[in-house]
Amino acid sequence: MITGHVFIATSVDGFIARENGDIGWLLERDDLTEDHGYDAFIADKDVIVMGRGSFDSIRHVTPWPYNRPVLVLSASLSEGDLPQELSGQVRISATTPADTMAMLQAEGRRRAYVDGGQIVQAFLRAGLIADMVITQVPVLLGSGRRLFGTIPSDIPLIHQATRTFPSGLVQSMYRVGQ
Amino acid sequence: MITGHVFIATSVDGFIARENGDIGWLLERDDLTEDHGYDAFIADKDVIVMGRGSFDSIRHVTPWPYNRPVLVLSASLSEGDLPQELSGQVRISATTPADTMAMLQAEGRRRAYVDGGQIVQAFLRAGLIADMVITQVPVLLGSGRRLFGTIPSDIPLIHQATRTFPSGLVQSMYRVGQ
Repeated sequence: MITGHVFIATSVDGFIARENGDIGWLLERDDLTEDHGYDAFIADKDVIVMGRGSFDSIRHVTPWPYNRPVLVLSASLSEGDLPQELSGQVRISATTPADTMAMLQAEGRRRAYVDGGQIVQAFLRAGLIADMVITQVPVLLGSGRRLFGTIPSDIPLIHQATRTFPSGLVQSMYRVGQ
Repeated sequence: MITGHVFIATSVDGFIARENGDIGWLLERDDLTEDHGYDAFIADKDVIVMGRGSFDSIRHVTPWPYNRPVLVLSASLSEGDLPQELSGQVRISATTPADTMAMLQAEGRRRAYVDGGQIVQAFLRAGLIADMVITQVPVLLGSGRRLFGTIPSDIPLIHQATRTFPSGLVQSMYRVGQ
């Protein structure tokens, strides 16, 4: 079965971006001499699923930062909106989380990197996230876009490991319980 | 100068209680064989400041759990509402965070344990919290009473230490930056 996996940073008060999408507060605290484990995380993922918000924040980044197929879940974007240079690397789909994962599984995908607040929330609600690596950045923002949202019932987590970095980041890995 | 200190547990999505104040989700994950550091934390605090919500959740606990003077910040409670057995141990005040701390300092208090979501938020906004020990409990609740709220501007934190427990709790200590 295909599984969903999260690797994301939040402020200590749980925001992944300001209301306007700004992540300057995160980038200015990103010590590039530290290995926060993204390369190790992505190594065994064979597809990336993200939402419109995440895609908009990186669509103009050059060179394109991903060397995995990217699926953007959006009801408002269409493939025609994609810049030419992303054709073949990025697809758009308006399917539900469950249908998306079924489609990816039918294509032979096994481990999906699921990114972005709205998308992570939708996949959590659908029971499609196996584990999460959450990196807490030492700042309180007070408002913005939250990583987590409402859920139909409690979701127990199983703590796997936590590590800290000299920059002050605290990174915890949790498996998602049933 | 008197300083404010926080020692509190939240779900991984940042809630200290459900909307109705319930903390059963926390208590059922509290492994009593683990020392989560409360005794060491409280040892050098000489007063406890809490809000109406925190007070209501513990006012009927017998025996009374605190051996420090408690100040309840509330505009709706009065000393006459206190049960007889708490007289001399609990005071009620409707002062602002700054005036509260000035009053406690004038009484010779130096280190205040500041407890409860609304009160912690108000003291953070007023710049009256020196450090926070935040213990994350491995569960997502989806809704409830949040530890953190809106703030006039970013509050940088300085990570001091993080430790984990076999029960899955992750406890981080932060100093509050300026």
